[in-house]
Amino acid sequence: MDEGAPPRRIRWGMVGGGRGAFIGEVHRRAARLDDGYELLAGALSSDPERARLSAQDCRIAPERAHADYAAMARAEAARPDGIEAVSIVTPNHRHHAVAKAFLEQGIHVICDKPLATSLADARDLVALARARNLLLGVTYNYSGYPMVRHARDLVRGGAIGRVRMVQAEFVLGWLSTALEAEGAKQAEWRTDPAQAGPSGVVGDVGTHAFHLAQFVTGLELEAVSADIATFVPGRRLEDNATMMLRWRGGARGAIWASMVAAGETVGLRLRVYGETGHIAWDQSYPDDLQVRPLNGEAHVLARGGKLSPAAKAATRLVAGLPEGFFEAFANLYRDYASIITALREGTPPPEPIAPTGEDGVAGLAFVEAVLNSARRDGAWVRPT
Amino acid sequence: MDEGAPPRRIRWGMVGGGRGAFIGEVHRRAARLDDGYELLAGALSSDPERARLSAQDCRIAPERAHADYAAMARAEAARPDGIEAVSIVTPNHRHHAVAKAFLEQGIHVICDKPLATSLADARDLVALARARNLLLGVTYNYSGYPMVRHARDLVRGGAIGRVRMVQAEFVLGWLSTALEAEGAKQAEWRTDPAQAGPSGVVGDVGTHAFHLAQFVTGLELEAVSADIATFVPGRRLEDNATMMLRWRGGARGAIWASMVAAGETVGLRLRVYGETGHIAWDQSYPDDLQVRPLNGEAHVLARGGKLSPAAKAATRLVAGLPEGFFEAFANLYRDYASIITALREGTPPPEPIAPTGEDGVAGLAFVEAVLNSARRDGAWVRPT
Amino acid sequence: MDEGAPPRRIRWGMVGGGRGAFIGEVHRRAARLDDGYELLAGALSSDPERARLSAQDCRIAPERAHADYAAMARAEAARPDGIEAVSIVTPNHRHHAVAKAFLEQGIHVICDKPLATSLADARDLVALARARNLLLGVTYNYSGYPMVRHARDLVRGGAIGRVRMVQAEFVLGWLSTALEAEGAKQAEWRTDPAQAGPSGVVGDVGTHAFHLAQFVTGLELEAVSADIATFVPGRRLEDNATMMLRWRGGARGAIWASMVAAGETVGLRLRVYGETGHIAWDQSYPDDLQVRPLNGEAHVLARGGKLSPAAKAATRLVAGLPEGFFEAFANLYRDYASIITALREGTPPPEPIAPTGEDGVAGLAFVEAVLNSARRDGAWVRPT
Amino acid sequence: MDEGAPPRRIRWGMVGGGRGAFIGEVHRRAARLDDGYELLAGALSSDPERARLSAQDCRIAPERAHADYAAMARAEAARPDGIEAVSIVTPNHRHHAVAKAFLEQGIHVICDKPLATSLADARDLVALARARNLLLGVTYNYSGYPMVRHARDLVRGGAIGRVRMVQAEFVLGWLSTALEAEGAKQAEWRTDPAQAGPSGVVGDVGTHAFHLAQFVTGLELEAVSADIATFVPGRRLEDNATMMLRWRGGARGAIWASMVAAGETVGLRLRVYGETGHIAWDQSYPDDLQVRPLNGEAHVLARGGKLSPAAKAATRLVAGLPEGFFEAFANLYRDYASIITALREGTPPPEPIAPTGEDGVAGLAFVEAVLNSARRDGAWVRPT
Repeated sequence: MDEGAPPRRIRWGMVGGGRGAFIGEVHRRAARLDDGYELLAGALSSDPERARLSAQDCRIAPERAHADYAAMARAEAARPDGIEAVSIVTPNHRHHAVAKAFLEQGIHVICDKPLATSLADARDLVALARARNLLLGVTYNYSGYPMVRHARDLVRGGAIGRVRMVQAEFVLGWLSTALEAEGAKQAEWRTDPAQAGPSGVVGDVGTHAFHLAQFVTGLELEAVSADIATFVPGRRLEDNATMMLRWRGGARGAIWASMVAAGETVGLRLRVYGETGHIAWDQSYPDDLQVRPLNGEAHVLARGGKLSPAAKAATRLVAGLPEGFFEAFANLYRDYASIITALREGTPPPEPIAPTGEDGVAGLAFVEAVLNSARRDGAWVRPT
Repeated sequence: MDEGAPPRRIRWGMVGGGRGAFIGEVHRRAARLDDGYELLAGALSSDPERARLSAQDCRIAPERAHADYAAMARAEAARPDGIEAVSIVTPNHRHHAVAKAFLEQGIHVICDKPLATSLADARDLVALARARNLLLGVTYNYSGYPMVRHARDLVRGGAIGRVRMVQAEFVLGWLSTALEAEGAKQAEWRTDPAQAGPSGVVGDVGTHAFHLAQFVTGLELEAVSADIATFVPGRRLEDNATMMLRWRGGARGAIWASMVAAGETVGLRLRVYGETGHIAWDQSYPDDLQVRPLNGEAHVLARGGKLSPAAKAATRLVAGLPEGFFEAFANLYRDYASIITALREGTPPPEPIAPTGEDGVAGLAFVEAVLNSARRDGAWVRPT
Repeated sequence: MDEGAPPRRIRWGMVGGGRGAFIGEVHRRAARLDDGYELLAGALSSDPERARLSAQDCRIAPERAHADYAAMARAEAARPDGIEAVSIVTPNHRHHAVAKAFLEQGIHVICDKPLATSLADARDLVALARARNLLLGVTYNYSGYPMVRHARDLVRGGAIGRVRMVQAEFVLGWLSTALEAEGAKQAEWRTDPAQAGPSGVVGDVGTHAFHLAQFVTGLELEAVSADIATFVPGRRLEDNATMMLRWRGGARGAIWASMVAAGETVGLRLRVYGETGHIAWDQSYPDDLQVRPLNGEAHVLARGGKLSPAAKAATRLVAGLPEGFFEAFANLYRDYASIITALREGTPPPEPIAPTGEDGVAGLAFVEAVLNSARRDGAWVRPT
Repeated sequence: MDEGAPPRRIRWGMVGGGRGAFIGEVHRRAARLDDGYELLAGALSSDPERARLSAQDCRIAPERAHADYAAMARAEAARPDGIEAVSIVTPNHRHHAVAKAFLEQGIHVICDKPLATSLADARDLVALARARNLLLGVTYNYSGYPMVRHARDLVRGGAIGRVRMVQAEFVLGWLSTALEAEGAKQAEWRTDPAQAGPSGVVGDVGTHAFHLAQFVTGLELEAVSADIATFVPGRRLEDNATMMLRWRGGARGAIWASMVAAGETVGLRLRVYGETGHIAWDQSYPDDLQVRPLNGEAHVLARGGKLSPAAKAATRLVAGLPEGFFEAFANLYRDYASIITALREGTPPPEPIAPTGEDGVAGLAFVEAVLNSARRDGAWVRPT
């Protein structure tokens, strides 16, 4: 092979993400954008006929199309050309079992968030991946945006001084009415405890906001005081949550998560205030990072401009040509590919920027603390 | 007098607001904009020489320039052409005594916020004004913006359905360092318990955000859970507060107040979410009101466009020609003038839109509840 | 009089601006904001009864209320306490005669734009004012915005290098239909050659854009190539104009003026590009000035921030508390007041920032060149 | 093949776009996003070693990697599994010869803009493609943005009434200095007449703005009056152009194209004004379309919201999750794929939305008219 040849594409499989699914297609496009993965096997649905048709859509060979993820894990592990990594895009309650099956077969795992529906299950997966020296990626995908990574480098590098306040929110409007009672499958998954786990909006999107806050600041949660509510009659999980946070080292802040914020589309916003300025980022305009110093003029940093190396590495186009959701998601896949490739070749893997199992555990610990606080009328609760 | 002649200007005095003061000059400009007041008397400073020079600046006749507000109240009440109304723009701790002195002389009072430094004092003034049938205005001036008044009419009129969440913030960056230790007088007033009262940032600007939320929604506070902090070493009052709110009838929300939000100038923002949409308003761009329905497209209502009668009455220029802070403040003065004129002429005064003593009481009750909650580690506290 | 006493208010009169007028009230509010003028005389309407009632509205004494401006000029000049300055807010076609009448009586003139309806008339007034050593102000009011003045200081001070391109536009939507045929008086004035002069939208608002471009850059027009159109059937003056400009020294650019830009309110926007960056300003958000360097990050300069002395002097509030149209207009009145006061006291008047007769002449020369170019199918025409 | 199976991927080749090239990689990513093309052959560079390495980067088999595009065209045409379509991403001056070579071999062509460097050459290609019933796509890629397509449907569907004015600009800052003299290859291509053709910035980006205006409005150019300039000393082609346009049917407008607009990144903006409102779009925030009616409130249409079928078909994510430049580019590839597939299968191809040869011809006619007008001092010139 010539010098400079691109690394072999990663042999890759997928569980979940069959016809009609949203997030599975996102993972596939993200993987395709940089051409680092080759989709070769799948258990795209637990329904055999749907699994077969979905595999055909994805040009997966019939003999590598499964309905049973466990059978797939075994079959792929047995092939000399079996998949090296699998992405899991099933409903939440199946994440743990599926991830475990593949990790046990020595196959790297990229799991959609949440990593599991209980903290114990999440910790179980982290221990397993560590023991096997396997990648366990968790797709908190908003951390893939270049300007989020630049914000991280700014904040952690001291550009706004010691952090004092962190304000984050992830608010959606689409579940302002009882769509789950009208047969909307995406709505059902998010409001049915059997599929979503014990939390509604906090687990679904509050964890994204929480991860983003941690990702950018590097802070760890000290305690949370929460007020949750269920506004839509008949809904079985909370659909709105106000959370006050105390971070270790003294910073304070709040996170608001809602699926009943009527009129919002994808309202993910983060602001971090330090002693000497603040940064603000809004997912709907991801190429811009607002930086407002205490003394000096507000300015806007643009994706493609003079960025930190990590942010620069996450951008594909000059400033002014917009990148978006798929490109950010692809940055996680690119990060995971470089880890998998390094492990394949026995070289030291790069320090992961993209989130991994530890982030998945932190997310579940956050959810549990929030639910505990809410049950105790807003008492301050530390994550366990 | 001819039909259509303008009403006689209100004979007007001022306590506080001498040379170097900020807010006194704002009140004078606001009163002047619509030419409804004539400044005739003042106790602009308690220092006699400064009082004299300040009165001269304002073209007040020497014999009506005082250093002692009580003397001024007596003297003006004794004149046949004495002032009808007085504005109080002293530091907070003197509001109660000054207002009382003028109300007792039968003179209408327009008081800068907070109405007093204790809830009891505030209630005392309201009772006194009511007993004498006098105006007791409290200048929560942000309620004077036309688009805030339009938001009020939209929300109270049901345009976004029943209110579910209210998110407000008033965050400033200018006290991110210990300016009060460097002799900055404006900083001292806001951080010295003797002048500001028991609260720092909550009383100073949190009450503006709280008033705005009430003004627009018409909701009453049920309980608050608060987390306050003092970030700047040596500071004697809280400089940051995160507050979760429960409103009567079931709405939830949060208010964030800060004077250490480095990089913010005047960050007053309100969002109200109802069952069918939300509205958003930012004081820095006051002519725009964002309206985002659950079903339908986001739009921007502009000052000067098709507004509710109350909003229309509060605007002086066509859409696209910006109005600002002075014009909003002037709307309060205009409202107060119509009340004073009606009382003078024995006609029924209009329903006040501009805030009055009751709003001042609600603000102090809010502050007390916040401080109580913070003392009790965030317990939910009802206002008394 | 004590040291530090404010200067005596300027004794002031007005021609035009009676009941129902828009711009007269703007001038009065602008003059009042800083309390530098005292309105003592007026010929607010040529209709005697309307003149009388309008004067009463403005608290002008009956003996100083006129219907005939010439009589007013003579009467005021004859009084020992006669007005020192007059503002002219009549329809355009009367500006010259009215201004002349007052200048000839030794009274300073502040004239709404355009200074006249012909270039010759405008030059006549400038010569007369110069001969009498009188102020001849012309209210190109947008030059009063603080951030426009800061832009001027930046651009003229070299912050963006030598200017290469200037893009300006002043576009309105309100005359997208034939409102003048429905009896709208404001529409009639702007589309009737007898009142507006030979130009419609170019004279009405194109001149504002042109003045702003000159004001900020200091450049002089070399030649213009224009394409004008009348879109609304039956309209008698042009309602849309596209203009390419060449500036002395090599800069290029364009101005677009329209009153049929449906959906625009007051679309006045200026961008100036130099060798090393550009600035952009939008009248609807006047407190912000965008500065975008060639190398470096885009930033936003806010009114109230660190501004040039001229810009600082034009601002009354801290950054974040919005000022608007009245405040900008008041800055012209404040500038004129300092000139009038200096002339009164025999001290050297300050270098005028606010526009004067020369700017009025340049505006009319621009209009004439545009109309000539349009008549010659877009040939490049130099102003005479 | 099962019902619902995806169509076979198009066998695809590329000329140009080797190591270090920008636009070739954009085409490849765009093609990959929807997985409709399989890159099998290439003449990615005319340098043999660079061609070989670049092909290896793209996983092209060595026997299908060429340095000579003509040899590639012949070889692929001779293979039973030869490519069906080729993309041309060479410098402009080679577009015509390369496209001709492939069309003559019966291979569909997707050509980056401009289609050629002369109008005659462009017409030659259109005639050839028509004669052979082949696709000749021209990647005016900004027409791929969903909100541009929605704007097209709104405007052509009468939502803003008959069009009166069209204002467009495409302005860049990166060539504000003589980068071409410092060895920057991208700069050389755009300023060297031998490679770029007779026009600099008008051909490079002015044509994008012109195409966008035509694409959205459906109007045809009647005549243009232009003023071009070369600001950077030593530059051999124009780097700034102001153009006034008259459109058939009476609409007017202007286009500004610049590569010396210091501080701009990719300033592509379009506004279309009709009798009853206007629309505005800015490429840097492509998911938003501003719609401002004459009567009614300004609103923002978001990608993913309630869009026209054509716009909906061009979007992959819900509103609020941003799409960008690659996705828009991919929409052209998706359009071309459906045409190629239809032609392959003998079914009627869909009406092309993505631009084709005719648009390429219109672009060159525009450039020629602009250059003619500029040579004649701005005379109005009709396209031939």
